[in-house]
Amino acid sequence: MSGSTLGTLFCVTNFGESHGPAIGCVIDGCPPGLALSEADIQHDLDRRRPGTSRHVTQRREADAVQILSGVFEGLTTGTPIALLIANTDQRSGDYADLLDTFRPGHADYAYWRKYGHRDPRGGGRASARLTAPTVAAGAVAKKWLREQYGTTFAGWMAQLGPIAIPFVDEAQIAHNPFFAPNAGVVPELEAHMDALRRAGDSCGARVNVVARGMPAGLGEPLYDRIDADIAYVMMGLNAVKGVEIGAGFRCVTQKGSEHGDELTPQGFRSNHAGGMLGGVSTGQDLVVSIAVKPTSSIRLPRASIDRAGNPTVVQTLGRHDPCVGIRAVPIAEALLAIVVMDHALRQRAQCADVRHAVPPIPGSVGGA
Amino acid sequence: MSGSTLGTLFCVTNFGESHGPAIGCVIDGCPPGLALSEADIQHDLDRRRPGTSRHVTQRREADAVQILSGVFEGLTTGTPIALLIANTDQRSGDYADLLDTFRPGHADYAYWRKYGHRDPRGGGRASARLTAPTVAAGAVAKKWLREQYGTTFAGWMAQLGPIAIPFVDEAQIAHNPFFAPNAGVVPELEAHMDALRRAGDSCGARVNVVARGMPAGLGEPLYDRIDADIAYVMMGLNAVKGVEIGAGFRCVTQKGSEHGDELTPQGFRSNHAGGMLGGVSTGQDLVVSIAVKPTSSIRLPRASIDRAGNPTVVQTLGRHDPCVGIRAVPIAEALLAIVVMDHALRQRAQCADVRHAVPPIPGSVGGA
Amino acid sequence: MSGSTLGTLFCVTNFGESHGPAIGCVIDGCPPGLALSEADIQHDLDRRRPGTSRHVTQRREADAVQILSGVFEGLTTGTPIALLIANTDQRSGDYADLLDTFRPGHADYAYWRKYGHRDPRGGGRASARLTAPTVAAGAVAKKWLREQYGTTFAGWMAQLGPIAIPFVDEAQIAHNPFFAPNAGVVPELEAHMDALRRAGDSCGARVNVVARGMPAGLGEPLYDRIDADIAYVMMGLNAVKGVEIGAGFRCVTQKGSEHGDELTPQGFRSNHAGGMLGGVSTGQDLVVSIAVKPTSSIRLPRASIDRAGNPTVVQTLGRHDPCVGIRAVPIAEALLAIVVMDHALRQRAQCADVRHAVPPIPGSVGGA
Amino acid sequence: MSGSTLGTLFCVTNFGESHGPAIGCVIDGCPPGLALSEADIQHDLDRRRPGTSRHVTQRREADAVQILSGVFEGLTTGTPIALLIANTDQRSGDYADLLDTFRPGHADYAYWRKYGHRDPRGGGRASARLTAPTVAAGAVAKKWLREQYGTTFAGWMAQLGPIAIPFVDEAQIAHNPFFAPNAGVVPELEAHMDALRRAGDSCGARVNVVARGMPAGLGEPLYDRIDADIAYVMMGLNAVKGVEIGAGFRCVTQKGSEHGDELTPQGFRSNHAGGMLGGVSTGQDLVVSIAVKPTSSIRLPRASIDRAGNPTVVQTLGRHDPCVGIRAVPIAEALLAIVVMDHALRQRAQCADVRHAVPPIPGSVGGA
Repeated sequence: MSGSTLGTLFCVTNFGESHGPAIGCVIDGCPPGLALSEADIQHDLDRRRPGTSRHVTQRREADAVQILSGVFEGLTTGTPIALLIANTDQRSGDYADLLDTFRPGHADYAYWRKYGHRDPRGGGRASARLTAPTVAAGAVAKKWLREQYGTTFAGWMAQLGPIAIPFVDEAQIAHNPFFAPNAGVVPELEAHMDALRRAGDSCGARVNVVARGMPAGLGEPLYDRIDADIAYVMMGLNAVKGVEIGAGFRCVTQKGSEHGDELTPQGFRSNHAGGMLGGVSTGQDLVVSIAVKPTSSIRLPRASIDRAGNPTVVQTLGRHDPCVGIRAVPIAEALLAIVVMDHALRQRAQCADVRHAVPPIPGSVGGA
Repeated sequence: MSGSTLGTLFCVTNFGESHGPAIGCVIDGCPPGLALSEADIQHDLDRRRPGTSRHVTQRREADAVQILSGVFEGLTTGTPIALLIANTDQRSGDYADLLDTFRPGHADYAYWRKYGHRDPRGGGRASARLTAPTVAAGAVAKKWLREQYGTTFAGWMAQLGPIAIPFVDEAQIAHNPFFAPNAGVVPELEAHMDALRRAGDSCGARVNVVARGMPAGLGEPLYDRIDADIAYVMMGLNAVKGVEIGAGFRCVTQKGSEHGDELTPQGFRSNHAGGMLGGVSTGQDLVVSIAVKPTSSIRLPRASIDRAGNPTVVQTLGRHDPCVGIRAVPIAEALLAIVVMDHALRQRAQCADVRHAVPPIPGSVGGA
Repeated sequence: MSGSTLGTLFCVTNFGESHGPAIGCVIDGCPPGLALSEADIQHDLDRRRPGTSRHVTQRREADAVQILSGVFEGLTTGTPIALLIANTDQRSGDYADLLDTFRPGHADYAYWRKYGHRDPRGGGRASARLTAPTVAAGAVAKKWLREQYGTTFAGWMAQLGPIAIPFVDEAQIAHNPFFAPNAGVVPELEAHMDALRRAGDSCGARVNVVARGMPAGLGEPLYDRIDADIAYVMMGLNAVKGVEIGAGFRCVTQKGSEHGDELTPQGFRSNHAGGMLGGVSTGQDLVVSIAVKPTSSIRLPRASIDRAGNPTVVQTLGRHDPCVGIRAVPIAEALLAIVVMDHALRQRAQCADVRHAVPPIPGSVGGA
Repeated sequence: MSGSTLGTLFCVTNFGESHGPAIGCVIDGCPPGLALSEADIQHDLDRRRPGTSRHVTQRREADAVQILSGVFEGLTTGTPIALLIANTDQRSGDYADLLDTFRPGHADYAYWRKYGHRDPRGGGRASARLTAPTVAAGAVAKKWLREQYGTTFAGWMAQLGPIAIPFVDEAQIAHNPFFAPNAGVVPELEAHMDALRRAGDSCGARVNVVARGMPAGLGEPLYDRIDADIAYVMMGLNAVKGVEIGAGFRCVTQKGSEHGDELTPQGFRSNHAGGMLGGVSTGQDLVVSIAVKPTSSIRLPRASIDRAGNPTVVQTLGRHDPCVGIRAVPIAEALLAIVVMDHALRQRAQCADVRHAVPPIPGSVGGA
């Protein structure tokens, strides 16, 4: 309940700081009997890992995950799965002079008012590094959901700063450092990022993420709606300032006769709802889009104050992602998977006995 | 934990359906000693109430709240506050022919797949009527926060369908049926709504809500961030498809040198963050914006299927809001207040001893 | 989370005070499709009801329950079931002079230190009257468990003050006002209670409760063990000061070779474990015993202090149970049922896929 | 929520198995600014550690704790404190032949029915070894409570098998391997244990634990009562079959005129309540007593069955505690401290503003 545990039944408790000895998480509530090894988790960690291209932070972390518990003879036992990831490339010196200064756009000031005391090294608890255990937990959820329901997850870069990225082909996502579903736009993205880096500035991004092969019926009607829980995890991802489901903000200018997705015996005619109605999944794809703010740590000088309240100027010279939106892609996938996993368990808790004479509606005939 | 309880320490458990005998909620965890009567709650209920203008549903509900427990001699006792609101104007007949049909854009199909069995009268549990107890609980939170910290809440219509509503004056919000902070635009809004109603169609809306006089330090760093919890409650509000905090989706095209709010001894220079950094409130205004989809219940015919999977056509002739976004305004305020209240209690649980030699930064010098 | 909600997935949120307009609860998470009417609940409420014999409080309450939500056409819908019980026989005058005095053995002093402000009428929130909604919720759990697994619950008086009550026949429990499984001892119990009442004193009791036809596998290994949760609900029942499972305190003087229940192909040879090992149900009967303290409200004068700290003398002349242990019987059954229900849902959430080639061990061959 | 997390605001999430690489826990919600090092925790771990005398298991574990996160420059930061304890003396071979057999009195059978798959090495997740992280977390709670309120904790052996241990002097507890508050009885205890060990059998125990210097007002009235939460943690301790608070089962034969603790301006005259009334602490000492069953792992042959349902005989030759009650003493202290800590935080969340003109009642004048 104290803010570092995610989920009701598939519970992920996160610990660690950017520059401590290790980070990790404890997954409680995973069903028993799932084949699981470090290799099942490492793939997604490697997608999120720093240092994989010149467009992300140059911190070098292997992010090698170790399973400490909860797996016996290659199968989950149903007891807590503890995952440990060592920190190996801390350079606390980079941050020593920031101890007394609040970096604009960072958690520094807010943490200080909250706790009175904080670990400033690498952002401490506020570091995006803490998303690594989340990605690891998401890999476990993804594997179970794929095996249980055939549900799969995909995320991609939809816009990087001013550059919108038309969706061309999901197969291309894995073949460029931007998670762009469009090989053609990659040179433009590279040029943009190189220029930003030279300028000492950063940019925002829009990331899309979908779940396919969704079971219908997941989500609670009133407060723990699946859309609410998705918004919760997505807005909780570092640097996210906006979340859309389905038509998102486009629904403001839609009419009811346009927005409401018609049903036919062949399936839904569209998916403006983004796969959820009344807080409950319909079986259509879940469709989510998030806005990621530009990295706050930039080389350009910024006005700030110190702990005594005096004016100062901040320039951040450490290793940083010029666009944190890039590495947000696998993290957003993981968060979506954790929400779906949690609601899948909740659903079978309450409704395992529900039977229908009529099969679910066929897959959506319209895209997002 | 089962989906109808909101909050960790200030807990609101909601019950009821649109056409049952009554709806209500139980507030658990309210501090003792707060002066509280039905009158303190009724004002916000009246703002949300149906039938107050021709632009909202013509259902006639007094929405008179009764306090069943938790108050003794005019003061809260610290024990559960049960609030009851009778349903008085049900017309189940309006919906009888919809029992076997799934209305496009409604929860009907999703509920049926989830539960196998549902109350179709007035939308049952999916009815926006269930937001009334939330508004009542929000009124309690608002009162406590105002007395404890001077925190206040305001919400308004920012865009109604295609009509953007420039913010002119908060004082005007209470004086038109659209919660518009701009008297000048009201005739245009009325004409738009009248035309929609004649056409049997509906429209979406954008609603803004702010909290002012915020204590700094509220929110947990990793998962239960205050921005995450705000997104959770807002996306969980019926018909909401998008949530923004601060700059929201505008941050996609902002640079870091533009987005990050600079600090000066006189205060923050801007509030792109929307009052939260690293998931923790900074003391600036909380600034939230939501997208509300167009009402799904419209008179225009829509393709659908019945429970047997056969094609059918749905026309909804009952009493409905042509723009559910209008009545979303007081609800969004209430939800924001509940989140702030919950985090205020959590904060003093963990950090009641934190003392600072330096006062908080002065109020933001930039607006939302 | 705030203390008035019981359960993780089958959640019961309780509200009300002894002398307010009504008491009740909201059950969230009940599976859909359960046939449920007020009559299914009323039977257990009537067993707990005051005024049914001269040996319990003479307060006259019909304790008629009303279902406000969550049931449609006679079946649960899966949404919150709100239950309301009106208070009809309040006599607040009985307690007016106790406003400033702390009754020995009562919550008065503790509540005052906690909240600063309390409702003294009839004990307010501390009244055993608040167990009525718990009993109602337990009736729902019992019905579902009986239909789903064949699990049944029974409770009885095992000792009343100094009088141990040998277990003779469960069928006799319903036919005497003491829930004694032994008709022969009833005259002695009546004489004892009559003498106590004349003396203005009260006595304690030991109550036993069992669950039969238990599914194996319920309970979590480390903290949310089923024995832990049973102890939690039982010790939380008003006036309970001790809880035993299986052999209970007798295990202190047992040897391992005596206590550990041997297994045979025909079943367990004994049930010292009380149906749980490692926090998980084995399929044997759950066997629980509780100690209920003597009623604190007695006519005999007792030393106390008032709110100003001055010495005073308290005599309680209102209507009270001379042995609260009597009415504890149906309450303890209800609490056990709620715990089993909650863990049954948790179990199928996590382990619905677990299959065994070998059937469960046959029912225990030894008794408690 | 999934069974391995203890507490609402001071949350301890436990992980690990007896024979995995490591065990540990994550403490979330600890207030910031508490001076904390491994040394503060190690003392209690050493009291619980195996191999410290011939009367406990001869497994040799240093149980050296490592703080992985949540402490910066010697002070807690308010973020999760991860504690890691390596397993160094696993001898899995000891247990290899038990893979297919259910040991009487052990979790083996129940786990198998629950999960279908289990780690049998050293009892896996059911091992008492998993109490080490609980003890570590309890040490943090104890330190904070001592500094904040002056609250202290003590536990001792009250009865070992048939030998009752009269309380003589708390100072003697630390000076014998039985945690006996009575040096005179130690030779008898040693002789008893030596004989048991030679016989290949085991015995039960009664352990008492108290909290002194308690703040009044901790605990929630109805369900999350402090007595309920204490019973929950104590019954959840491996091998515990009974829990008493204050007079415990003695209250069955007490009269109301004897049990109810009278109040005077000088303090309570007795403490039959064990420091709690109506689920809320009164400021008197918390007084708890538990029954610990005899160790199930004994050398004497026991009837059982294997996974195929065939009869077999089990003899346990590994390293075991002949009386698990001995090492339960520091664990019970830790559990009590965690409950008090959690409720202390909950109390200041809800009631931080409550002020009294009259000081609390003076410390109890009567003992337990």
